[in-house]
Amino acid sequence: MIPQLPQPPQLPHPDPGTGAAVKAADRAHVFHSWSAQELIDPLAVAGAEGSYFWDYDGRRYLDFTSGLVFTNIGYQHPKVVAAIQEQAGRMTTFAPAFAIEARSEAARLIAERTPGDLDKIFFTNAGADAVEHAVRMARLHTGRPKILSAYRSYHGGTQQAVNITGDPRRWASDSGSAGVVRFWAPFLYRSRFYAETEEQECARALEHLETTIAFEGPDTIAAIILETIPGTAGIMVPPPGYLAGVREICDRHGIVFVLDEVMAGFGRTGTWFAADLFGVVPDLMTFAKGVNSGYVPLGGVAISERIAATFARRPYPGGLTYSGHPLACAAAVATINVMAEEGVVENAAGLGARVIGPGLRDLAARHPSVGEVRGVGMFWALDLVRNRETREPLVPYNASGEATAPMAAFAAAAKENGLWPFVNMNRTHVVPPCTLTEEEAKEGLAALDAALTVADGYTE
Amino acid sequence: MIPQLPQPPQLPHPDPGTGAAVKAADRAHVFHSWSAQELIDPLAVAGAEGSYFWDYDGRRYLDFTSGLVFTNIGYQHPKVVAAIQEQAGRMTTFAPAFAIEARSEAARLIAERTPGDLDKIFFTNAGADAVEHAVRMARLHTGRPKILSAYRSYHGGTQQAVNITGDPRRWASDSGSAGVVRFWAPFLYRSRFYAETEEQECARALEHLETTIAFEGPDTIAAIILETIPGTAGIMVPPPGYLAGVREICDRHGIVFVLDEVMAGFGRTGTWFAADLFGVVPDLMTFAKGVNSGYVPLGGVAISERIAATFARRPYPGGLTYSGHPLACAAAVATINVMAEEGVVENAAGLGARVIGPGLRDLAARHPSVGEVRGVGMFWALDLVRNRETREPLVPYNASGEATAPMAAFAAAAKENGLWPFVNMNRTHVVPPCTLTEEEAKEGLAALDAALTVADGYTE
Repeated sequence: MIPQLPQPPQLPHPDPGTGAAVKAADRAHVFHSWSAQELIDPLAVAGAEGSYFWDYDGRRYLDFTSGLVFTNIGYQHPKVVAAIQEQAGRMTTFAPAFAIEARSEAARLIAERTPGDLDKIFFTNAGADAVEHAVRMARLHTGRPKILSAYRSYHGGTQQAVNITGDPRRWASDSGSAGVVRFWAPFLYRSRFYAETEEQECARALEHLETTIAFEGPDTIAAIILETIPGTAGIMVPPPGYLAGVREICDRHGIVFVLDEVMAGFGRTGTWFAADLFGVVPDLMTFAKGVNSGYVPLGGVAISERIAATFARRPYPGGLTYSGHPLACAAAVATINVMAEEGVVENAAGLGARVIGPGLRDLAARHPSVGEVRGVGMFWALDLVRNRETREPLVPYNASGEATAPMAAFAAAAKENGLWPFVNMNRTHVVPPCTLTEEEAKEGLAALDAALTVADGYTE
Repeated sequence: MIPQLPQPPQLPHPDPGTGAAVKAADRAHVFHSWSAQELIDPLAVAGAEGSYFWDYDGRRYLDFTSGLVFTNIGYQHPKVVAAIQEQAGRMTTFAPAFAIEARSEAARLIAERTPGDLDKIFFTNAGADAVEHAVRMARLHTGRPKILSAYRSYHGGTQQAVNITGDPRRWASDSGSAGVVRFWAPFLYRSRFYAETEEQECARALEHLETTIAFEGPDTIAAIILETIPGTAGIMVPPPGYLAGVREICDRHGIVFVLDEVMAGFGRTGTWFAADLFGVVPDLMTFAKGVNSGYVPLGGVAISERIAATFARRPYPGGLTYSGHPLACAAAVATINVMAEEGVVENAAGLGARVIGPGLRDLAARHPSVGEVRGVGMFWALDLVRNRETREPLVPYNASGEATAPMAAFAAAAKENGLWPFVNMNRTHVVPPCTLTEEEAKEGLAALDAALTVADGYTE
């Protein structure tokens, strides 16, 4: 079933004056994430609808980023907007210690969809604090200190979450290895295990994890945390058997298995949760972003019966003022209902398998800069390389300045062709809304085709 | 000028059936903050308006908690509700790397009100992550590791924020002293310095801080963080000269001074920020709650020119998906404008000085359970004691179970009298909306009067 999509975007009259004022106030007063404040030039955005947004000069972009991979139902879905407006008129906010209709219903709808017995929902404001609380629950449940996490991962920007993270955004806030041990997860294209097949990569990655645990001391390890499919780090779909293998290792050692589905959850992979693709049930699962398409900040932890029981008669010592915020929960209720009614998850699966996947593989066949295409649903990465034989990345790991010129040129070309691309290091991710239409998919693929021609110019 | 207040609350038809369903789904699926999940009995709340909320059985309560001290403009202020509805229809959400009208305007309005040169605004989702980022900025700005914070404080529930916190909610997640050193701030009624006057308490607290710094090594200290007026820990207004003294110490040692105004800011103290009461300008100031009365989750850090300059050409390595969320920022714009137009801050100051303060002191004169009244604006605490001479708290520090019976009895009596009280350990805080009317203040004081009679029964 093809979802009923919002009307085609209506551009407002271009109003460069307002745009200039918005930009000026931004430059005077807004301190931006992950940026050198004087070296950025933020585009002033006037409006957004469905899969598109536009600036004050009347330039419209097809959004292949879903913001930061959160607008799974696209921008301004009328039913979700109406639900937010209705809830705002009824009860915008209320403290966490009470039973509130939108809070109860959001928890019920989420629990209905989470795998296995993950039926208790602890709401947070976003993904980072969901990870913070999942880690705390695991440590208190096991009484053990260490958390094992993967290189090539992102788990959020607060101190604990970023220390678990395996990406350079950790480095400036790194507290050494205190409490966190990092290991390598499977990724055949850039294997750390000298593997040549998926089977080999899977077996060796599990052996590596098992050995790391043995040498760390199983009884010191509270949790293993993994993004079910790592997102910002490169959308590496794990090989068959890997997550089931980790589950088995956790069970054997009494380690809590945490899956981080902040980016991969709520339809992104063409299933409600990425875990569904692998038939694996974690002990804790974090979510945010797609739960309400980021229309109102919301995240959370889905908790298994066994871990919830730990806090049945012993207080859980964590909390937050806006836990289960009514407006955010009402947006989640509407989003989940829209996704169910309009077949959004099925659309992500179908369009991914039928159009995006084949389209990207076709681009790879024609563009020497594409080293690998990988992904599923509406969750794809193109790994761009200088040389297909050596697989040397088109720009080096964590490069800045001049070294990033090839990716900057690629991005500029995409934008000139009306596409706003997601760029991270040497990769572009294809992560459009899960409500994307086939026509929009083809429009985006055509723009990527043009931009990849620019990238090809940097290959050797 | 008395603010134009929302209409008196209209109770919906009591609907116990809906209430029971909401409660049942809550008990089945919502995991609550700071709670033993099977030992709580959350009230199902049907609606809220102005200073009141009501349950599904038609019982209405005057809210002397402002939620968790965040609804500074009361519930459902029509202008802010309308602004949220309008923004939802225009642009609910957008990624942080762009210039967005509501984001720019919120930053401008906040920067206009923050003290001194705190003119760059980094938006977060709430208070805990604001503190996380302030700490990171201080560490990167100074290149030093340690943070000094006070016992009797609360700075948020994420791992770094809770480790800075000086309240028992830290203990279960305490990572030892790693990176954090706690000291004692002034609090004459329960002085750690054997002081008998405010002057003595102030001088000794500064001497204690100075000595702690000398023994820790000034060059190892990135920041001193203080709630301008500690909130949940007991609303201890610092003595004249203390904060100015800390400012001077920070300047002398190149230490970043962070004031946490998550609870005290945005009108709570009868000024825009509590720092205004003391004429002190910190280097970083955190905020949340009152910035938009919690109508949509929002927090942030106001950054001085000097610290912003550190990240002018060097990237700030922190960030978050919902930084400067348009819906949250639109709620902040409307809230700040409402507060300015309707004289909400002036109302908090005037009603506090004219009605609440004198009313509480009158209660103290008549009730032996009241050990001390302290506060300012709409930010007051009654320190309840078993014995006024010994000042023994009415319930012990961090008590649970039976030991808390006196406070439980007090709270139950308040509720029977139509007042929802804020209770923490041996204290009740009087923290109503800053839009409270004189009549509501008197109604609340009368209910407190009745409840304190119950508390008196536990004195010796």
